[in-house]
Amino acid sequence: MKKLEDKILSDGIILNNEILKVDSFVNHQIDSALLMDISEDIKNHFSNVDKIVTIEISGIAFAVGVGVCYGGLPVVFAKKTISRTLDVLNSYTADVKSFTKGTLNQIRIDKKFLKKGERVLIVDDFLASGNAAIGLIEILKQAGCEIVGVSAIIEKRFQGGRKRIEDLGIKVYCPASIDAFVDGKPKFHED
Amino acid sequence: MKKLEDKILSDGIILNNEILKVDSFVNHQIDSALLMDISEDIKNHFSNVDKIVTIEISGIAFAVGVGVCYGGLPVVFAKKTISRTLDVLNSYTADVKSFTKGTLNQIRIDKKFLKKGERVLIVDDFLASGNAAIGLIEILKQAGCEIVGVSAIIEKRFQGGRKRIEDLGIKVYCPASIDAFVDGKPKFHED
Repeated sequence: MKKLEDKILSDGIILNNEILKVDSFVNHQIDSALLMDISEDIKNHFSNVDKIVTIEISGIAFAVGVGVCYGGLPVVFAKKTISRTLDVLNSYTADVKSFTKGTLNQIRIDKKFLKKGERVLIVDDFLASGNAAIGLIEILKQAGCEIVGVSAIIEKRFQGGRKRIEDLGIKVYCPASIDAFVDGKPKFHED
Repeated sequence: MKKLEDKILSDGIILNNEILKVDSFVNHQIDSALLMDISEDIKNHFSNVDKIVTIEISGIAFAVGVGVCYGGLPVVFAKKTISRTLDVLNSYTADVKSFTKGTLNQIRIDKKFLKKGERVLIVDDFLASGNAAIGLIEILKQAGCEIVGVSAIIEKRFQGGRKRIEDLGIKVYCPASIDAFVDGKPKFHED
C-alpha cells in the first residue's frame, strides 16, 4: 500500500539496521486518518470475517479500525496482564516472546469471547518473527475458530514470520512488507 | 447516552458492588459499532480539538474512534511500559495509581508528540477516582497544551474523579455516568 510505504519512508526511523521506529504514526502517536485507509486496505483482502482478534497493546487501534471497516465487527484483544476483571481460570493461553522488548509474556483470551467455527482475522501492528501471531493462532485453534488470515500493518519479511504462518496454511497480507533494510532505508517487497 | 446505558444494563456485570465489568464490549472484547456511536457522541460535546490523548491500554480503542470522528486527528497514548523504541530521556512523565489493578505506574509521553498551545481532548475508558486523567493533565500542563476536556466512556461519579477534574476548571463529559450501584445495578446520573 503506497500511502503507508511513503509514510514509512518519510517518518519511520531505523535503529541499528534492525528496528523500525514508527512511533509518530503507529505505536505512540497514531495517525487516525491513515489508520482508516490502512484498515480499508486490509478489509479488501479478506472476506467472510466474523471477528477481529489482536494482542495488546499496539495492535488494538488497527484491529478496531478494521472492525469498523467491516461495518462494526467485535474486536477481541488478547491480554498480557492479569486484572481484577479477567477470569484467568476460564481463558485460553499461549506463551509469546516480544521481539522489541525481549520479554516473555503469557497471553490470554477469555473463553467466552471465542466460539467454535467463528471466522477470525488476526490483526497486529508488526509481523517480524511471527511469535505474537503464532501465539494467537494457538489460542484460536484451542477455541476451534477458523483462521481467515493474518494481517500486520508492517511486515519485516526477512525475520521469517510470514513463512511460519503460511506453512500452517494461513493467508498473510501486510499493507507494507519490508524485504530488508539497506543503507538505513527499508526496501519494500514487490509482488 | 441511552444506547451505552442500555448496553451496560444488559451486558455489564457488577463485582462486589464496586467494579463494573464491561469486558464483553469495552475492555477485552470491543463492540466496534457501539464504539463509533460513543465516539460520535463524545465528538458532539467538544469543539476545536487538535489532538486526542489517552493512556494504554483500554483507552486506545475509544481514543482512536474519537479521532476518526473528528475527521482523522492524531491520537497519542501515554505508555506505562518502557520499550526499545521509547525515548525515556525526552518524555513527560507522571505517576498514576491503577484503581482496578492496585499498581502504581509511571506514565510517559515522548515530548515530540505534544506541542505548546495544542488543544487536547483526553479520552479514556473509565473515570473513577480520576488518577489516570489527573496524570495525563499533569503531562499536558508540562507540555503547555490547552486541555479542552476529559471524556471517559463510563464514569463512576461516586468515586470523585469528576470533581477533582472540574475543580481544575476542566470540562468533563461521560456518555454513561453512574451515581451508585444499587442492589447490583447501576443507577445512572440524570442531568
